[in-house]
Amino acid sequence: MLGVCYYPEHWPEAWWAKDARRMRDMGISFVRIGEFAWSRLEPKRGEFDFAWLDRAMDTLGAAGLKVVLGTPTATPPKWLMDEYPEIAPVDQQGRVRGFGSRRHYTFSSEVWWRESARIVEIIAKRYGEHPALDGWQTDNEYGCHDTTQSWGAEDLKAFRRWLRLRYQSTDQLNEAWGNVFWSMEVASFEDVVLPNLTVTETNPAARLDFWRFQSQQVAAYDKMQCEIIRKNSPGRWITHNFMGFVNDFDHWKVGENLDLASWDSYPIGFVEKFPFSQEERNRWAETSHPDIAPFHHDLYRGVGRGRFWIMEQQPGPVNWAPWNPVPKPGMVRLWTWEALAHGAEVVSYFRWRQAPFAQEQMHAGLNLPGSDELSVGGREAEIVGREIIETGVLPATEQAPVAIVYDYETYWATVIQPQGRDFQYHDLAFRWYEAVRKLGLNVDFLPPGTALEGYKLVLVPSLMMVADAALQAFSAADGIVLYGPRSGSRTRQFAIPENLPPGPLAKLAGVRVTQVSSLRPGLDDAVSGAVSGAAIRWREYVEADGEVLATFANGDPALTAKDGHHYLACWPDQELLRQTLTHLAAKAGLETVSLPDHIRLRKRGGMTFAFNYGTEVWAIPAGANVVLGETEVKPQAVSAWKE
Amino acid sequence: MLGVCYYPEHWPEAWWAKDARRMRDMGISFVRIGEFAWSRLEPKRGEFDFAWLDRAMDTLGAAGLKVVLGTPTATPPKWLMDEYPEIAPVDQQGRVRGFGSRRHYTFSSEVWWRESARIVEIIAKRYGEHPALDGWQTDNEYGCHDTTQSWGAEDLKAFRRWLRLRYQSTDQLNEAWGNVFWSMEVASFEDVVLPNLTVTETNPAARLDFWRFQSQQVAAYDKMQCEIIRKNSPGRWITHNFMGFVNDFDHWKVGENLDLASWDSYPIGFVEKFPFSQEERNRWAETSHPDIAPFHHDLYRGVGRGRFWIMEQQPGPVNWAPWNPVPKPGMVRLWTWEALAHGAEVVSYFRWRQAPFAQEQMHAGLNLPGSDELSVGGREAEIVGREIIETGVLPATEQAPVAIVYDYETYWATVIQPQGRDFQYHDLAFRWYEAVRKLGLNVDFLPPGTALEGYKLVLVPSLMMVADAALQAFSAADGIVLYGPRSGSRTRQFAIPENLPPGPLAKLAGVRVTQVSSLRPGLDDAVSGAVSGAAIRWREYVEADGEVLATFANGDPALTAKDGHHYLACWPDQELLRQTLTHLAAKAGLETVSLPDHIRLRKRGGMTFAFNYGTEVWAIPAGANVVLGETEVKPQAVSAWKE
Amino acid sequence: MLGVCYYPEHWPEAWWAKDARRMRDMGISFVRIGEFAWSRLEPKRGEFDFAWLDRAMDTLGAAGLKVVLGTPTATPPKWLMDEYPEIAPVDQQGRVRGFGSRRHYTFSSEVWWRESARIVEIIAKRYGEHPALDGWQTDNEYGCHDTTQSWGAEDLKAFRRWLRLRYQSTDQLNEAWGNVFWSMEVASFEDVVLPNLTVTETNPAARLDFWRFQSQQVAAYDKMQCEIIRKNSPGRWITHNFMGFVNDFDHWKVGENLDLASWDSYPIGFVEKFPFSQEERNRWAETSHPDIAPFHHDLYRGVGRGRFWIMEQQPGPVNWAPWNPVPKPGMVRLWTWEALAHGAEVVSYFRWRQAPFAQEQMHAGLNLPGSDELSVGGREAEIVGREIIETGVLPATEQAPVAIVYDYETYWATVIQPQGRDFQYHDLAFRWYEAVRKLGLNVDFLPPGTALEGYKLVLVPSLMMVADAALQAFSAADGIVLYGPRSGSRTRQFAIPENLPPGPLAKLAGVRVTQVSSLRPGLDDAVSGAVSGAAIRWREYVEADGEVLATFANGDPALTAKDGHHYLACWPDQELLRQTLTHLAAKAGLETVSLPDHIRLRKRGGMTFAFNYGTEVWAIPAGANVVLGETEVKPQAVSAWKE
Ligand SMILES: [Zn+2]
Ligand SMILES: [Zn+2]
Ligand SMILES: [Zn+2]
Repeated sequence: MLGVCYYPEHWPEAWWAKDARRMRDMGISFVRIGEFAWSRLEPKRGEFDFAWLDRAMDTLGAAGLKVVLGTPTATPPKWLMDEYPEIAPVDQQGRVRGFGSRRHYTFSSEVWWRESARIVEIIAKRYGEHPALDGWQTDNEYGCHDTTQSWGAEDLKAFRRWLRLRYQSTDQLNEAWGNVFWSMEVASFEDVVLPNLTVTETNPAARLDFWRFQSQQVAAYDKMQCEIIRKNSPGRWITHNFMGFVNDFDHWKVGENLDLASWDSYPIGFVEKFPFSQEERNRWAETSHPDIAPFHHDLYRGVGRGRFWIMEQQPGPVNWAPWNPVPKPGMVRLWTWEALAHGAEVVSYFRWRQAPFAQEQMHAGLNLPGSDELSVGGREAEIVGREIIETGVLPATEQAPVAIVYDYETYWATVIQPQGRDFQYHDLAFRWYEAVRKLGLNVDFLPPGTALEGYKLVLVPSLMMVADAALQAFSAADGIVLYGPRSGSRTRQFAIPENLPPGPLAKLAGVRVTQVSSLRPGLDDAVSGAVSGAAIRWREYVEADGEVLATFANGDPALTAKDGHHYLACWPDQELLRQTLTHLAAKAGLETVSLPDHIRLRKRGGMTFAFNYGTEVWAIPAGANVVLGETEVKPQAVSAWKE
Repeated sequence: MLGVCYYPEHWPEAWWAKDARRMRDMGISFVRIGEFAWSRLEPKRGEFDFAWLDRAMDTLGAAGLKVVLGTPTATPPKWLMDEYPEIAPVDQQGRVRGFGSRRHYTFSSEVWWRESARIVEIIAKRYGEHPALDGWQTDNEYGCHDTTQSWGAEDLKAFRRWLRLRYQSTDQLNEAWGNVFWSMEVASFEDVVLPNLTVTETNPAARLDFWRFQSQQVAAYDKMQCEIIRKNSPGRWITHNFMGFVNDFDHWKVGENLDLASWDSYPIGFVEKFPFSQEERNRWAETSHPDIAPFHHDLYRGVGRGRFWIMEQQPGPVNWAPWNPVPKPGMVRLWTWEALAHGAEVVSYFRWRQAPFAQEQMHAGLNLPGSDELSVGGREAEIVGREIIETGVLPATEQAPVAIVYDYETYWATVIQPQGRDFQYHDLAFRWYEAVRKLGLNVDFLPPGTALEGYKLVLVPSLMMVADAALQAFSAADGIVLYGPRSGSRTRQFAIPENLPPGPLAKLAGVRVTQVSSLRPGLDDAVSGAVSGAAIRWREYVEADGEVLATFANGDPALTAKDGHHYLACWPDQELLRQTLTHLAAKAGLETVSLPDHIRLRKRGGMTFAFNYGTEVWAIPAGANVVLGETEVKPQAVSAWKE
Repeated sequence: MLGVCYYPEHWPEAWWAKDARRMRDMGISFVRIGEFAWSRLEPKRGEFDFAWLDRAMDTLGAAGLKVVLGTPTATPPKWLMDEYPEIAPVDQQGRVRGFGSRRHYTFSSEVWWRESARIVEIIAKRYGEHPALDGWQTDNEYGCHDTTQSWGAEDLKAFRRWLRLRYQSTDQLNEAWGNVFWSMEVASFEDVVLPNLTVTETNPAARLDFWRFQSQQVAAYDKMQCEIIRKNSPGRWITHNFMGFVNDFDHWKVGENLDLASWDSYPIGFVEKFPFSQEERNRWAETSHPDIAPFHHDLYRGVGRGRFWIMEQQPGPVNWAPWNPVPKPGMVRLWTWEALAHGAEVVSYFRWRQAPFAQEQMHAGLNLPGSDELSVGGREAEIVGREIIETGVLPATEQAPVAIVYDYETYWATVIQPQGRDFQYHDLAFRWYEAVRKLGLNVDFLPPGTALEGYKLVLVPSLMMVADAALQAFSAADGIVLYGPRSGSRTRQFAIPENLPPGPLAKLAGVRVTQVSSLRPGLDDAVSGAVSGAAIRWREYVEADGEVLATFANGDPALTAKDGHHYLACWPDQELLRQTLTHLAAKAGLETVSLPDHIRLRKRGGMTFAFNYGTEVWAIPAGANVVLGETEVKPQAVSAWKE
């Protein structure tokens, strides 16, 4: 199904009915509205103007559209910021981040929670049972513009409160953080300071706790909104629109509040944001890399426990990357089908009509700026609208053969302590995903601690802190498991485990890590054996009590195996990664193909989709029963078939 | 004529008479003094010491030198900063920029205006009719060190005042800026905040208005000084010394206050400042790029409505660039003649004698540090002094066949909204100038809205906001016109025009822009047709109702023509730019040559000058009547001839 | 002899005795303790807990170990920072650098001096005559994390005090700094502001004075500690542990307070810190560059007037560089022997056991994290422990044939006024050292002004400010002297000398510098004559009244000679430097060899050591009497022989 993001407050009321009709005509079923409209809903404290939104909802409903209503908390209005300046967040350098754009609040402010609850309740009460209302979006893009963390007086107050609950006594805090190290011991929780603006690096345990605290605040704040909505809007679902490559808070936890996950898919903009090489950036500049959107589809399908939407789908060039090329013809259609193939329930374009004013005036919409004329992307969306009807209901999404265990704390830990400048968790996880997808396999993402039954191959790119639940899940896994570097290398309190890394995994994996080496670009360490290639960026020195499948140049173990549990003691280069995953997939009894760089497959039930991100045609398997597209998948095209 | 910058306060009084005599002897006629001397003229509030300046003026006058007196407002003294700390500017990060160097004031401070008026009036009254006084310089290098804009409380107060006058009501302001977008609406002008230190980007319309406001303050402040001087110094002219590649304020507006423009020419330092490639930087490191100084000569001849000086001419290595090489032998002479060829009335070297102390001790002068011995540059200046006498009066500068419309607001708009990281207006304008100069043509710079009669070829590298006057001038043009990318792409309020770009130019140019693509380095789009080459950095998707002269690879129009008005829908690479300008020059009936990279010509009346920036000799046309230099123009040499 | 850094407060008391015994068993004689333990010694103001340290000292002493006790002033505890917030330093951007790591104090705070004196006296009284105590370390790593300078109110107050003493009157200050230049004159010492946060660069003379002031504070603060210790701990020696490539304060001056110097040797981490090329960084990533540690050994042997220790020796990978590779096998042993060859009395490893918690948990120790198991580095140290016994007492270190005059003020001056972005004094000095070491020669470092008797070759890479004592020492030198670029180019007050550079050296060296050119990467100037190669980065234009040994392409002097005094008018590339030093060594009657890039020699008395940093074997001279290692020096190996 298709949807669109719409801002009635941006356009003359006279346009609304026509807009709604044109949406319906092109196959759009859902409209998201309202998430930035606070200043129009409550222009002054306590003075509300809901009439316009009433009429907008009625108009959309009358056209047969279903509404997703956003709570407007991403943009507190000026009068509120003036009443309570402490709402404004503070950056890591100590500067107040003031009014004038969006997301100008800290999750630590109690006043802000009270004010958020107030506006959400008022809106939930008014529209909770509106006939056009299908569901809710809480706030907008948590974490966007680096807003998970704030470094002000409110944050310090809340952090101390959080620490007091967690540690009970400063003795326990001092012990947990190792504060004896540099006379950093505190005698009272009021002695704790924020881990910024110090002479040199702050205690990594303190930083990790600060990050956890902020992440938990995001989840709790979201839960507060969800509870108010649920009470006042029975029978409606709730989602939040997550982002790509944002790892600052634990998405699994926020997902637990929601009925379904959604995310904002800007495949081309992310090409500049992810740490690709310049060659990759140039190659994928106008199509995006073929795994960027799928990575997030699979991740957020997990976060939504099987259910997810694209809440904002890029419909053309955007405005926020360093360069913003026009997508190649066909890509808007391809991305839409790709999301559906990965299980999206709805793909909602951002936005209906390009705004001729303000910060996003260079962000394309389905219609040209301020006009009723479809853009290139709008015309592609129209085609998908027809194709969806022709193709009919898609088969259900099934459990994938491969699971990737994805962990936000590990991301924080590697940011806090990279040890090698280019050790970035999301980069590592993405490369593992890319490699397994090139083998033609479906992938599910799971939080650590999830039961792994039924997965033939479980990939753990890295999991620095292994909780009991995770250990039990790994122990009970019935498939092949592969742990990557730094797994189990820290206790919950960011200490090195007594038995050395991989700590709790030592017995399962049969290894002990005695040294680690981070390698600057240009250095590598050759690996050979059952698989070969090279270690780059990171290389561990391990002792193994199981089988050694491959070794480094000096004979040390590089890849080990013990009862189905494998340990890869390095950051693998592309070749080593490819061989390792191919080897383990075979061991797991999985049939793989070797796809060209620009082709990806995705199975949804008995239906297989192929997507062409490159410049050369790709032929689908002979004899397939084509249900979408052609047997020759042209550049920027998609095909689907049943076997 | 030659001049020099001199600081009597830096040297023992006993040296002054000898200095003056030596200046006169080497052909110097003008001496600029006084522009940093406030602490010596008024050591404490109300306690003046003019005796030394009296004697200095008398001494210079007695030697037959004419004085240009600078107002000392670029360096408010310590006691004044202590009395009124609010004079100090604030940087974009919120830090006060304090005493200890220069230009430590914000144009927004009312106290500062009052104090400036006071000191200017006192000086103008005292020296306004001094027999040695020829003219005035207001302040020094407005905008230097990023001082056009300031971000403090004084600035916010003044900005609100300015907005109230401009918009009358907050409804109009909210509408003009599109403040509804992210609940940014204000209920009072006191709600307006400065467009900095926000969570993400601020409203571009707000930023543009803030920039206009600051630019207008510069012009108004300068006008205040000019009016006081005019009242107290009848018959003397006024100038200001502008800088190279500073676009932060509208120089056309400041120029309106002045009798003539002047600028500070440091050709070698600018090689590091302008966004050249590393290859270009290495190639031109010791001569400067052959279009840097000429670009500014032609620009400031326009700003001065035909009259301009070089107020500060680089006489050797300087101190402020990342690297500061010694110019190749001959370059000081070449630059001096080049300025004269472009119409400069006076070339004034900075400075008479290298200062052995303080911030500019590594800045060469005509004399070695603290000495009476000419430097290499001093000896070249001496030669030019003789040559000027030998060559006699130069013919008058005539209107050029080619006009470039140069617009400061477009620069601000592209800084505010680059959309592609390397879209910089001054880079684009410079490349167009370079290309047309390589065809051997003289160029005039004009502000948008100037009548274009008599120009055979009018180049508009980009003009984002097209005012009525500009539209009328283009409509009335009797030559060939070429508009570059993004022209007409914004309304005065920084909105996308209702009829889409190029907005007001749509009818004239016969195009409509529906999409734009910014291309990262490494991407391009081939262009072929009547002209060929490639688009880099920026490519527009246009619909044309006129003739299509060249197309992109997919067949879209790249260069269009309609009744002499042309539209170039991209940032052209060097080859496409060369072919386009050659094609249009031919269409305009202009004879062109194809000059080597290192040779440039300039006609002044019937006299043609040739300048050699390279390493190979260049022969002037056979049979020319040489009046300066030789028929073989050697490296770093200049020749001139009459036909 | 060997030592180790130990933190009893990090481990259960039950472990101490075993730790001590294991240290002793592996050949360790010295243990440094206590330097970060303030919060454990004085948990609250006036409440002391010395019992644990008493027991720790006793335990170590009982095992036959000698203790080096550090004063704990590098880590003031939280309660003290709360009592006196003015102790915290302020960064150059005006931000307070707060509690939470270490070195969070400014040397300018009078309260801090009082509190430092208090704790040092208490500790010195308690342990000054403890039988296990061998000596003291003051504070820890002055200047680490950019802490020599602080930019707060306390610093301004102290700076004004310092200036008043130095200049007596503001007239003298204004004159000395050239404050007339931009109306920067002050009427009172209270008018002086810190040289930061100005609109453009501040007065270089003011910056240099500010740097001197801060450097002097470091030396005076250290002296204060030393005097208290000496009074209370008769017969014990005092050192401070200096760092590598830290030039922010004058180490010669601090050295004067001490009985011996020591430094913290992290050869691999420094590969990333020093401005090497990327090629060099890759090549030496896992061994370090063969001159990094020796450079500092020779420098600190000078600072310690012949006596020095390695207080912290890298025993494996560290945690603080951008990348932290594991050293190649053998390097820990090689570095230890290398330090001994250069005259170190003790090599003390940092640290006994890797800490599993806090900021340095990724810093290797002699034992694995939290365990009693030796690491790779620990096992190499154990081998050295045995070898030291086998080899016996080493011969005494003798005066080297070559002296390098090393000057901290020149470093400050080039940071303040680089003039060419890549002119860095320590880079230049290092390259000269590297070149002379490749000739197989021993080197001593000397402060300017030291008598030069007995040195056959005196190298002065640059000495910008030449004091009388230095001039006299050069005049009295009985060897060949070579002055590098910018020598003598500034007076004590950072002015250009009246007679032009090299100022006081002009007569000795027989040159006058009239222009300088800084050359961007990619530019050079060929040199030929008695030596050849090229100038890069920096090239001077000189007039010579002595012999011209080599010239630049245009015939100007590049290398001159006058009565044994030579002047090199450029930054030499590797070839020119090699030829110049070879030429002058021959002139000085020194026998040289031409070592491969990866081999270095060091003579200690009649014993010669060879160190192999490369990948190819190197054969020692035939017939040598090998006393350590083999006749074929393998990669990462060391050999020593007597002739
Ligand atoms: Zn969004
Ligand atoms: Zn200037
Ligand atoms: Zn250390």
